[in-house]
Amino acid sequence: MGILRNIGQLATCASDATQGGAHVVAHAAIVWSGDEITWVGEEKNLPPMTDHDEHDAGGRLVIPGLIDCHTHLAFGGWRADEFEERIRGSSYLEIARRGGGIRSTVRDTRRAEADHLFDRVRRHAAEMLELGVTTIECKSGYGLTLEDELKLLKVYRRLSMDGPQRIVSTFLGAHTVPPEFDGRRAEYVDLVCDVMIPRVAREKLASFCDVFVEESAFSLKEGERILKTGRQHGLGAKVHADQLTSCGGAELAASVGAVSADHLEQTSTVGIRAMAREGVVAVSLPIASLYLGVKPLDGRRFIEAGVSVAVATDFNPGSAPSYHLPMALMLACNMNRLTPAQALLAGTRNAARAIGMSDTVGSIEAGKKADLALLDAESVNHWLYNFRPNAVAATFVGGRLASGQL
Amino acid sequence: MGILRNIGQLATCASDATQGGAHVVAHAAIVWSGDEITWVGEEKNLPPMTDHDEHDAGGRLVIPGLIDCHTHLAFGGWRADEFEERIRGSSYLEIARRGGGIRSTVRDTRRAEADHLFDRVRRHAAEMLELGVTTIECKSGYGLTLEDELKLLKVYRRLSMDGPQRIVSTFLGAHTVPPEFDGRRAEYVDLVCDVMIPRVAREKLASFCDVFVEESAFSLKEGERILKTGRQHGLGAKVHADQLTSCGGAELAASVGAVSADHLEQTSTVGIRAMAREGVVAVSLPIASLYLGVKPLDGRRFIEAGVSVAVATDFNPGSAPSYHLPMALMLACNMNRLTPAQALLAGTRNAARAIGMSDTVGSIEAGKKADLALLDAESVNHWLYNFRPNAVAATFVGGRLASGQL
Repeated sequence: MGILRNIGQLATCASDATQGGAHVVAHAAIVWSGDEITWVGEEKNLPPMTDHDEHDAGGRLVIPGLIDCHTHLAFGGWRADEFEERIRGSSYLEIARRGGGIRSTVRDTRRAEADHLFDRVRRHAAEMLELGVTTIECKSGYGLTLEDELKLLKVYRRLSMDGPQRIVSTFLGAHTVPPEFDGRRAEYVDLVCDVMIPRVAREKLASFCDVFVEESAFSLKEGERILKTGRQHGLGAKVHADQLTSCGGAELAASVGAVSADHLEQTSTVGIRAMAREGVVAVSLPIASLYLGVKPLDGRRFIEAGVSVAVATDFNPGSAPSYHLPMALMLACNMNRLTPAQALLAGTRNAARAIGMSDTVGSIEAGKKADLALLDAESVNHWLYNFRPNAVAATFVGGRLASGQL
Repeated sequence: MGILRNIGQLATCASDATQGGAHVVAHAAIVWSGDEITWVGEEKNLPPMTDHDEHDAGGRLVIPGLIDCHTHLAFGGWRADEFEERIRGSSYLEIARRGGGIRSTVRDTRRAEADHLFDRVRRHAAEMLELGVTTIECKSGYGLTLEDELKLLKVYRRLSMDGPQRIVSTFLGAHTVPPEFDGRRAEYVDLVCDVMIPRVAREKLASFCDVFVEESAFSLKEGERILKTGRQHGLGAKVHADQLTSCGGAELAASVGAVSADHLEQTSTVGIRAMAREGVVAVSLPIASLYLGVKPLDGRRFIEAGVSVAVATDFNPGSAPSYHLPMALMLACNMNRLTPAQALLAGTRNAARAIGMSDTVGSIEAGKKADLALLDAESVNHWLYNFRPNAVAATFVGGRLASGQL
């Protein structure tokens, strides 16, 4: 039993909030029992209670624990020198010819021991916790053999058991065609569909199946087959769509009933309408737009069409080498034209929808988990406007103080 | 007497470094006496010494203390709600009509007591120190009366005496025409030239005089008069140039012998050539480009033309409400096409040139001040690639550990 008092502003992100607002309550308090919220409201209306652990928010802004709904958390090596090469003007193709790019990460990831990968993801998760991130979606996709994909997903399962954050795993065997299948891509798609997906599903190692639909990766048709196979095995669908070219990824996401389509820098109006119709969440990844120099998506186009917009880091060693979700939200304000309140919803309630966890997390309401971030900021607007290294003073997961101090 | 041992990589940014490299020495050590560096080199060549305070860098990357060479550090109030209004599509003009914009900051700054402003700048400076910033250029410009401009410059003098950072003050009375001079701009320019500049110079309250040359602020001709008046009174010249329109600000900076021209998003090739010829440093302000949605300048164009490029935060409550200089350097890599080594030089050696302090700070060499930042990063490339909330483990100013711990 716990209670958090003396909240200056509480942005509940409650499900009855309109898309424009984060449902703010001033001078609020939150009560929980076990790991679940039982009461939220103005502190003056607090019911009489006994035997509660009391925490003082110190007049801070309190928001739902942030949800990073798109990361590639586990990978071997880094590609820092490639960052410099790209700035100097080398294309991905030239870098790939020299053995760089995603294939160098695949090589390093295959070589890495599970224990080493686990130490890395645990460290990154701890750093994300300090930034207020209480739930992380984690994709495989740098293994690209049955054994190495299972290795990554088992690292995530171990991270999930290790805690404190909630981990959602996504199988992304269809991230790229691995080098040993050069010229035999159809065989790789067979391997994904006939061997990998059934095994991942049987071992309950993932909740979702994702595919990178792009000229340089998998075709719409291959994507459809992979996602449908995933669904037959009980895996929800997600799509890397329309990042570099408008190739129908958003429409595919709508047609297979995906929970989300991600990237979407090049999505057409037809694609946006299809997503709205089918309730597919749009996941914007502004750090990747920034690091790749891609024209960022216009979040307002999606919101005005009735699509829920989430924002995530896309943390990976190539195009988005930062796990700083609050920075991604600040960038979403400046690059995707989301208001701070819309950006907050994008990192909480809508991010929960993008990973099928709306029933559990993403807002501060009775019945949800007591996942909370306490911010040294006077308002949601101020938080994402006056960008600081880390405005989070403390993070609660399931009603327990998991990081920081009060 | 002090010594820093066990440096994994030391990016000296020494004056003999080419524009492309940061002059990196592996397994290095630094020795200082008083506040001044006396020896830099590979640790194995360290001369025998006694009576030195020893510090262990723990294998970290060490860089010169960062220099934020363009800030508007002292101001009253904030404009967080205006940030939301601009995202929603309101123009500066509309916001100004409602009493917002720079004039609301002028109002709040005039109302603010000097002690209150001092508390704010001291807090911001302390937070910047944690980010490795050891020297800060601070502009006036939100007072716009003799009394209020002096108030701001005296706040900076107090900050300079309070320490630990080095403070360089710039008089920016010509930031905008204050409301009480609507329709009488020539009279305001007279006030700046005939009253404010002589008084600021006599009280030794600033090293530089700056002017905002822009259609919405001061004309080229007014700028020229103001900067020349400043020079007659011993103040070096700096120019806010070509941010929103290409109006000859860079050429003006060259013609009056300014140390720097800042912003420069719209500078013409002619302007760049003039800056190269006269040795004017180009100061890029990518946070302002990001928050205003302005097309960022192409740093490579300047570097290839032979112009030294510096990067600063432009910290101010309107267009750049963040003092995160390492983030500005990361943005400069992604938005201005600077390599990480060029970005590091832009935040150290070239920033020192932009404030006339090259003899004292900006590189790690015998004879310079022992201002150092110790980074949890394996290389300069890795530091600005894998962007983290704050990679700085410790900051030294003049050989004294001023922030963090080892």
